[in-house]
Amino acid sequence: MIQVYVTGGTFDKEYNYISGSLFFRDTHLPSMFERGRCTLDVNIKTLMMIDSMEMMEEDREIIAYNCQRCPYDKILITHGTDKVVETAQFLAGRNIEGKTIVLTGAMIPYAFGTSSDGFFNLGSALAFVQTLQPGVYVSMNGRYFHWDNVVKNKKTGFFEELNN
Amino acid sequence: MIQVYVTGGTFDKEYNYISGSLFFRDTHLPSMFERGRCTLDVNIKTLMMIDSMEMMEEDREIIAYNCQRCPYDKILITHGTDKVVETAQFLAGRNIEGKTIVLTGAMIPYAFGTSSDGFFNLGSALAFVQTLQPGVYVSMNGRYFHWDNVVKNKKTGFFEELNN
Amino acid sequence: MIQVYVTGGTFDKEYNYISGSLFFRDTHLPSMFERGRCTLDVNIKTLMMIDSMEMMEEDREIIAYNCQRCPYDKILITHGTDKVVETAQFLAGRNIEGKTIVLTGAMIPYAFGTSSDGFFNLGSALAFVQTLQPGVYVSMNGRYFHWDNVVKNKKTGFFEELNN
Amino acid sequence: MIQVYVTGGTFDKEYNYISGSLFFRDTHLPSMFERGRCTLDVNIKTLMMIDSMEMMEEDREIIAYNCQRCPYDKILITHGTDKVVETAQFLAGRNIEGKTIVLTGAMIPYAFGTSSDGFFNLGSALAFVQTLQPGVYVSMNGRYFHWDNVVKNKKTGFFEELNN
Repeated sequence: MIQVYVTGGTFDKEYNYISGSLFFRDTHLPSMFERGRCTLDVNIKTLMMIDSMEMMEEDREIIAYNCQRCPYDKILITHGTDKVVETAQFLAGRNIEGKTIVLTGAMIPYAFGTSSDGFFNLGSALAFVQTLQPGVYVSMNGRYFHWDNVVKNKKTGFFEELNN
Repeated sequence: MIQVYVTGGTFDKEYNYISGSLFFRDTHLPSMFERGRCTLDVNIKTLMMIDSMEMMEEDREIIAYNCQRCPYDKILITHGTDKVVETAQFLAGRNIEGKTIVLTGAMIPYAFGTSSDGFFNLGSALAFVQTLQPGVYVSMNGRYFHWDNVVKNKKTGFFEELNN
Repeated sequence: MIQVYVTGGTFDKEYNYISGSLFFRDTHLPSMFERGRCTLDVNIKTLMMIDSMEMMEEDREIIAYNCQRCPYDKILITHGTDKVVETAQFLAGRNIEGKTIVLTGAMIPYAFGTSSDGFFNLGSALAFVQTLQPGVYVSMNGRYFHWDNVVKNKKTGFFEELNN
Repeated sequence: MIQVYVTGGTFDKEYNYISGSLFFRDTHLPSMFERGRCTLDVNIKTLMMIDSMEMMEEDREIIAYNCQRCPYDKILITHGTDKVVETAQFLAGRNIEGKTIVLTGAMIPYAFGTSSDGFFNLGSALAFVQTLQPGVYVSMNGRYFHWDNVVKNKKTGFFEELNN
């Protein structure tokens, strides 16, 4: 069984055609797993639906608490990309033993159709969570990064290792 | 560096609006990696563009030859799903040492937009090829299978382990 | 009120991922009108779901019968493009008085996402049926054609006037 | 020949994945006509690329000037929906003789894939501009409205007649 925690982020944003701004409705994760014809046992739980720029200490506590209590040792978390590294660091600080935690996100909302990277990122993160050693990782751009060796390049939107 | 070999399959099929049938044009792999915002070094080579139902011994020889000669130890192969298990078995029979070979495909052409599983499968296969031990694998439905323990269920279109 | 008769055609075809061939399930018309945010009173009725190559005299009788009995004077018909001209001629031969009948179709199935012309064609046909004088027309390629002055160019897939 | 004037609006907006906001790049109109397999002679000219909330007197002057100088009598204008009625009124005030002017827009950007109404609206507007009497019209929701009898319902996003 793989535990999936939804926290929001660009991944799950939608376009509000009245206001012209982005907002959250339900997560797209279940329909994405279906479209991906995924046959793994996946348990999806929406912890929150927020922009990661608005994620605060108490939100990260909720995520950490759920990761600790989770009976499964493979955890995939969808998250806004702006602050995903901070959440990865927070989770690593909790020393959650024996669990592989992979955080991923998207640069373009899944709801925006054939331009979004979200579906690809979900496929990657799902594979990494099954194969990586216990620890906390960020998965983006087809790669995985250790929580203590990753930064989002704010200009390009790509994730990079610190020492490269 | 990750070597990607394109062999065709549903993954890369397109709709011919004159004849109403499916056909191959160029592979979509480069644009898929771009859309996935992939920052890995990926070398894409189209070995053939065929339906796996038409794949013959000599075609598999070409694939095996390229896998053997390939200077990189991570190889991702796109392939028609109907005969992907046969090709995996063929490659395993060649005892290609020290290389991780992951074959993947799609049930619905990538060109058919937001219904296709191809983009998700590519993300998964790309992650598996980076993390699995040397050997030959098939990646579908969010999972990976060892070449000698997988079968495509022709009725459902899902891949299953032999002994489950 | 605008009457919409669905007869099938490429417009409504879908991809069967088990057999790899195209087939019909339910029509996409209702969801297309919703996505187009259409506020016209539209009555949608599926008369048949067939490829126009398989359309026979008795099928055209059903279409003609429904057009004659229809209480509304604006009728939009979705149809396979290969034989849409033949059906237009058949309907014109019935001298249905005082009704504007517009037939349209698609070269690429609506279900194939952002490559299909179907959504555009529906928008055009819907506008033409509201504004053209009584008579029988074919609407394709952003244009309308009188039933007795149109032919499908089988090589290019475009509709053309006979005398141009 | 049909003259198409692009002025921006939601129709042509795109998602900026760095800032998370919407912006304008090039218009999608040419690729939309191609995808619609349109065979009409269409002349596309981008007058401006702005949100209609930012459209000012001088912008409307540019649009009116171009409509007056245009050698063709069928003019289609893409426009933001929030202020499209105001621009229609402005153009009607100029008494441009003998020309059919149809303004249209979209509630969801064309770039957002299979959720956008833009492609349908373009098909409708293109048909209306070919068939309506000279005058100024707004085309949305599958319908056309006279410039002096239309209002956008800000709550629902639908266009309505004033006296209904």
